[in-house]
Amino acid sequence: MPEQSPLELAEGDPFGPHNLPYGVFTTAGEPERRRLGVRVGGHVLDAGAAAHALGSPYAALLDRPSLNPLMAAGRTAWRDVRRALTAWVTVPAHRPDIEPLLHPLDSVTLHLPYEVADYVDFYASEHHATNVGRIFRPDGAALTPNWKHLPIGYHGRAGTIVVSGTDVTRPSGQRKSPADPAPVFGPSGKLDIEAEVAFVVGTPSRQGSPVELASFRDHVFGLSLLNDWSARDIQAWEYVPLGPFLGKSFATSVAAWVTPLEALDAARVAPPARTDDLLPYLDDAQDEEPGGFDLRISVSLNGHVISEPPFSTMYWTAAQQLAHMTVNGASLRTGDLFASGTVSGARREERGSFLELTWNGTEPLELPDGKRTFLEDGDEITLTAWAPGPDGTRVGLGEVTGRITAG
Amino acid sequence: MPEQSPLELAEGDPFGPHNLPYGVFTTAGEPERRRLGVRVGGHVLDAGAAAHALGSPYAALLDRPSLNPLMAAGRTAWRDVRRALTAWVTVPAHRPDIEPLLHPLDSVTLHLPYEVADYVDFYASEHHATNVGRIFRPDGAALTPNWKHLPIGYHGRAGTIVVSGTDVTRPSGQRKSPADPAPVFGPSGKLDIEAEVAFVVGTPSRQGSPVELASFRDHVFGLSLLNDWSARDIQAWEYVPLGPFLGKSFATSVAAWVTPLEALDAARVAPPARTDDLLPYLDDAQDEEPGGFDLRISVSLNGHVISEPPFSTMYWTAAQQLAHMTVNGASLRTGDLFASGTVSGARREERGSFLELTWNGTEPLELPDGKRTFLEDGDEITLTAWAPGPDGTRVGLGEVTGRITAG
Repeated sequence: MPEQSPLELAEGDPFGPHNLPYGVFTTAGEPERRRLGVRVGGHVLDAGAAAHALGSPYAALLDRPSLNPLMAAGRTAWRDVRRALTAWVTVPAHRPDIEPLLHPLDSVTLHLPYEVADYVDFYASEHHATNVGRIFRPDGAALTPNWKHLPIGYHGRAGTIVVSGTDVTRPSGQRKSPADPAPVFGPSGKLDIEAEVAFVVGTPSRQGSPVELASFRDHVFGLSLLNDWSARDIQAWEYVPLGPFLGKSFATSVAAWVTPLEALDAARVAPPARTDDLLPYLDDAQDEEPGGFDLRISVSLNGHVISEPPFSTMYWTAAQQLAHMTVNGASLRTGDLFASGTVSGARREERGSFLELTWNGTEPLELPDGKRTFLEDGDEITLTAWAPGPDGTRVGLGEVTGRITAG
Repeated sequence: MPEQSPLELAEGDPFGPHNLPYGVFTTAGEPERRRLGVRVGGHVLDAGAAAHALGSPYAALLDRPSLNPLMAAGRTAWRDVRRALTAWVTVPAHRPDIEPLLHPLDSVTLHLPYEVADYVDFYASEHHATNVGRIFRPDGAALTPNWKHLPIGYHGRAGTIVVSGTDVTRPSGQRKSPADPAPVFGPSGKLDIEAEVAFVVGTPSRQGSPVELASFRDHVFGLSLLNDWSARDIQAWEYVPLGPFLGKSFATSVAAWVTPLEALDAARVAPPARTDDLLPYLDDAQDEEPGGFDLRISVSLNGHVISEPPFSTMYWTAAQQLAHMTVNGASLRTGDLFASGTVSGARREERGSFLELTWNGTEPLELPDGKRTFLEDGDEITLTAWAPGPDGTRVGLGEVTGRITAG
């Protein structure tokens, strides 16, 4: 009896041919040769080798050590390559060529799939911004006056973005509680996560030319889960007046897999109703395509689910973030990454950070292995997510995981 | 009578063999071929061609389209290459080989000399921070409580850094004055400059490994003048709570020439006396080498000098900024650029921004062509600077210039 083909997936596999996220991998036999891969079920297809085997004209985009050339090729190329890949993994006649090019996921090493250009982090969840405002500025309004008028964001450190699975060293730094007469230095005592979704830019834009809301799909290649590790004690002392810096810049973890926007067509949903009029460049009320994504995120600490943040609740959409980020004429480069900010829903069990889950440490989480306020050395955090796919399927997002090591 | 050699410079030329800044240029004949150049007086030496002509082992670092390989080669290589270059332009026996490789400055096009990795902007002038605090937060303390304890900084947009000479389009964006019932959109009415000095990282560092104060020279390749264009009305509305974003990200201009740190040995000076105890990782009181640089900056508007900011007055040194930026374990990459923040001295005519020079527009500058509060379309800003060099010489810094075009 022949072995079952790795292309015969279980019913409802969230990484079926309706998904096909992109990544970059190496094998144990050739640890220096990075190759573009496409995930199919529990395997990764060597996409460049497949293109050569089938005589595809897309070999020039797929036989590459990073996603950047494909991302730079533009929306038409993205669609055509995706169509070709779908055929390669579904048409039975291709099996003899394709099957030898499938590597079991647990046999490969995954890498950062693109070279990150600029990294911007937004602050787009009203629930999150409200919680943070209440915690950090208890005497003022929870939301700053600008919050409902523009998607607040700031630039982060592109050079410390690491791929899922990379250990994260606990950062040291300055902090000062109101009781301290002077700042003290040492390992962060409030190491936290931020459960986010990151969008990666493929098609660049010219300096001086804003990107309109409707051009979102022309520029954005896909999305990935992202964990924006945060040292709350360092952040609280440093962030006035120029924003977060060392409290964030030590590490940001991103999933190894990029889900193409096309795979998420069935997951588009309208964002929450807007409570304030928006300036025309941000007004998406007339958009044909709803700006939100119905991604169901799950946050686990050491294998135990602690939160399920719903991405559909985000007030500002990725298209609005892109339009805002470029309205001053700032250009886009292939590899620009912009993240949503912490995803938090209305309920406590939907909050995307320990800051909110434990109300800055005052309400510890009860876990199987004891109480927890912030992260301890050895803790492992994993974000997973899925979205509605076509015909009742689910589209799985690649996980992002990271373990804390002592600083 | 033979023509005078371009290597016979006028007495006191600030771009003599004691300086030798690096840049990247193209010629009219080969507009696509970027080459590494070294400035000598009014000429640029094709450094790669010179290395080949003289059979130098440094051709591999110099025959390149960008400075990145040389910057990545480390401090010993920087010293050795500089020694070689000094010999090439001073030893008479080399003249027949070198002279044909010198291009008049006005015959070449200068480009961004390196690929920028991450860009960080600090806020290191006490005079500037005090002025800004008084203007933007008149009811509170001018300096935030953290200011004297750490060099405040934030990440900027690396992708919109442009080389000197690039026109800058006036950005549009949201702003809201207290009198406005809602934000309005349009071209910035408070377009400003920030006269700064930028340091570029050559030698990278590993994530999780802070760079100590004493290792400054092992990592930093050189410095350049930088103009951090700023839209004050956009910035004022957006910057709370996560810092400046669109008010800065439309463009940042940097000089085409990088002055090696070695050329500035005679310009090292002690920073101002510290008024507060510093944590050990920032405490430079025992450093053998003073952390400041005596750079005399000049700011011109349409050819008329409007300010002379003294870089020697900066409270935080570049070595302290580097130590702070990495103390949380953030890694460095070749091409990381970190800028000082606006350089402002104690006196009005030493302020490095129109925000300060005109006290947010309330005290217009009197200029030959009329009054000025912020920049108007067509205005051209030029920063120049010099520093004391060896034996009574002056070391010239490459200028950074930019002209405002209508948005």
